[in-house]
Amino acid sequence: MKAELQEKIRAAIRATKEKTPLAGSITNTVTIDFVANAQLAVGGSAAMVYLPDEAEGLAQIGGASYINVGTLEPIYAESVPAMAKKLFEINKPWVLDPVAVGLGQLRSDLLLQLKDYKPSIVRGNPSEIIALAGLWGLEGGSSESKVVGVDSTEKVYDAEMAAISIANYTGGAVAVSGEIDFVTDGSLSCRSGGGSHFLEKITGAGCALGGVMAVYLQEAENPFIAALAGTNAFNIAGGRAQIKAQGPGSFKVAFLDELYRLSPDDISNNRFTVEVDGVEYSCSGGDCTLRRRR
Amino acid sequence: MKAELQEKIRAAIRATKEKTPLAGSITNTVTIDFVANAQLAVGGSAAMVYLPDEAEGLAQIGGASYINVGTLEPIYAESVPAMAKKLFEINKPWVLDPVAVGLGQLRSDLLLQLKDYKPSIVRGNPSEIIALAGLWGLEGGSSESKVVGVDSTEKVYDAEMAAISIANYTGGAVAVSGEIDFVTDGSLSCRSGGGSHFLEKITGAGCALGGVMAVYLQEAENPFIAALAGTNAFNIAGGRAQIKAQGPGSFKVAFLDELYRLSPDDISNNRFTVEVDGVEYSCSGGDCTLRRRR
Amino acid sequence: MKAELQEKIRAAIRATKEKTPLAGSITNTVTIDFVANAQLAVGGSAAMVYLPDEAEGLAQIGGASYINVGTLEPIYAESVPAMAKKLFEINKPWVLDPVAVGLGQLRSDLLLQLKDYKPSIVRGNPSEIIALAGLWGLEGGSSESKVVGVDSTEKVYDAEMAAISIANYTGGAVAVSGEIDFVTDGSLSCRSGGGSHFLEKITGAGCALGGVMAVYLQEAENPFIAALAGTNAFNIAGGRAQIKAQGPGSFKVAFLDELYRLSPDDISNNRFTVEVDGVEYSCSGGDCTLRRRR
Repeated sequence: MKAELQEKIRAAIRATKEKTPLAGSITNTVTIDFVANAQLAVGGSAAMVYLPDEAEGLAQIGGASYINVGTLEPIYAESVPAMAKKLFEINKPWVLDPVAVGLGQLRSDLLLQLKDYKPSIVRGNPSEIIALAGLWGLEGGSSESKVVGVDSTEKVYDAEMAAISIANYTGGAVAVSGEIDFVTDGSLSCRSGGGSHFLEKITGAGCALGGVMAVYLQEAENPFIAALAGTNAFNIAGGRAQIKAQGPGSFKVAFLDELYRLSPDDISNNRFTVEVDGVEYSCSGGDCTLRRRR
Repeated sequence: MKAELQEKIRAAIRATKEKTPLAGSITNTVTIDFVANAQLAVGGSAAMVYLPDEAEGLAQIGGASYINVGTLEPIYAESVPAMAKKLFEINKPWVLDPVAVGLGQLRSDLLLQLKDYKPSIVRGNPSEIIALAGLWGLEGGSSESKVVGVDSTEKVYDAEMAAISIANYTGGAVAVSGEIDFVTDGSLSCRSGGGSHFLEKITGAGCALGGVMAVYLQEAENPFIAALAGTNAFNIAGGRAQIKAQGPGSFKVAFLDELYRLSPDDISNNRFTVEVDGVEYSCSGGDCTLRRRR
Repeated sequence: MKAELQEKIRAAIRATKEKTPLAGSITNTVTIDFVANAQLAVGGSAAMVYLPDEAEGLAQIGGASYINVGTLEPIYAESVPAMAKKLFEINKPWVLDPVAVGLGQLRSDLLLQLKDYKPSIVRGNPSEIIALAGLWGLEGGSSESKVVGVDSTEKVYDAEMAAISIANYTGGAVAVSGEIDFVTDGSLSCRSGGGSHFLEKITGAGCALGGVMAVYLQEAENPFIAALAGTNAFNIAGGRAQIKAQGPGSFKVAFLDELYRLSPDDISNNRFTVEVDGVEYSCSGGDCTLRRRR
């Protein structure tokens, strides 16, 4: 099981590095440069737009897209649904980052509309995933957002049921970012470790991860592999960058360097566990056994 | 006098590092990433918005806010006054950065409206402070802006009367950035030295400082302490970063690292002088004497 | 011939470093911070705006301007033509970066309008130059844009005729960025080598180059010298930064450092060839001979 996932990760990474896949984005203005640079660092190509017809155009040109609702401007009321609708209609995969869900009316309106267009991957912090499931009326969600600014006040564990519900609804994958990241397709789930405390001390690590998942979506067998590959990549690069860092400034620089230098093996070999419907596969020395969790 | 200020600075810095206070912003798109990363580096949390209802929401969630009029977009005509009005009504402190005052009609209109909402701290370069005082009809101001682009053509000394007038009007503090920074609450004033010539060779050092002051506002005893703490922090971090820098690129990286690493003592001990109503306190070896200036 | 160009480059660089010329911009939000920092690094000053009256104001204050249509927002429909019209009327030089020409209706509409205001320098990748020439009905152009996202799918060589046509139309210069950069005023052309593969792995190297050309335009004898000086500067700084880089993160940092440190001689001495109407001047040891190309 785990070896099979690792092989699929390696295949996705190898293909990405060969093909420079373009992932277009509507994203926020705080971290837009970091998203683009992370997408380039992993071997993809980036393009960002604001206008509805350009968003539809990018949806068609790119193999996958990234929608992040971080800093809404008035035009997003049109461009976000236009891009998502087009992606859904032409069956192109895309990543949704429901940043700061709960803040303001337009944000809630947009995220509610996006339910119909079933994002292939939803990536967020625990409070965002719980609030999105609440907004979408899914199990594990809460109608009260506990996102404060852009920060989570809940733990990854608290968001697992919400994540599974969203994945079961979309038929795609959900990634919850935190100390140990949780990635699920509703049945199959992985927990990926590593990373760095500095990822909390720079702005946009989550956004950059969403953008990278959109790059990987184009060459991965399915959204789950793309989400896991991205999560593993950020965890291994984060750990390596921390060793070189004197603070958050040099961490971010080293992080982009390490992201660029990751091999397919580096990404597939990052520490992660596998479970199916809550039953964990424990693998050591080729002998895989099952262990029930919770 | 000086020892008391230093103790208050240390207390503010210690509390900030413990509590991760959120300072929401409306700011410009050039330096938005740098503002957020500087706020995170000093131990705060950052969130940026454009829409009026989101700005009001952030004003309520955060302990203090930052408004920077650098790159106005049409929606700022609504969101900037909405945020400032809300902050004033709920008595939350905030920092105003009157970037490029004098350029365009909306900028003047907005800055004129903001007079009613009395920013706790106004931070700017000398020409911006003089032009803002002029716009607000205060002593020391000039009706003719001498800001060129975003650059000052006047010296800190030229802006001292304007700074004092603004502080007396708002009841808060004013910080004038330059070779020797001037921070005043209208009566009590400090001059803070240090920094680096590289702070002029990267974009957004002033914006980042305003954002950091908004973080400090939440844990400082008053706006003056927050403004002085921020100014001292940038001066000491700037000096340390310059030693490591090969140019402006590596300076900015090292600057964020040093900002992150500053201890409460580092910030309180940065070289600064104290004066009250133009009379300078000269302190050495515990013996403080008075010296009249000008 | 070549020695004369080199002397003009040195004069432009020396004057820039002395005078800190301001180049105002309307540009995209992805790379806006990098453009500003590159402009500061070479000795200029930067200011970015979105609103029409502010764009007109900046056009008048600055000695030259930069217009980049990368991430159009609705207000650009007014501000881009307003700025370009003003620049044309008051005879101030400016650089056009026709990013992603072919994507969306507004982009084509704007770029078509800009034809009337004759940019002093057009800078783009090969596919952008070919598509712009097509949009403007000039020789060497194609009515079908082959820009994919923001990437070129054509080679510098393919865009030479389009570049020459545009330069002949505007009376200014055109710079085509690629492995070997091509700069032409329609008759006189240079090919500048060097650079780094990392320039493709960070976002905004082309935008930053356009912004730097706008700084140089103010002190250079003519647009051709400004375009060649900028191109040479990026090639030499890119090559030096690559030696220090561990990946794209540290490359970008080192690139800004090197850009800042370049001397007039560094920039004039970067490897480049000269030709007039397709006849190459081959210079070695002071003896210049002619060689017909193609």
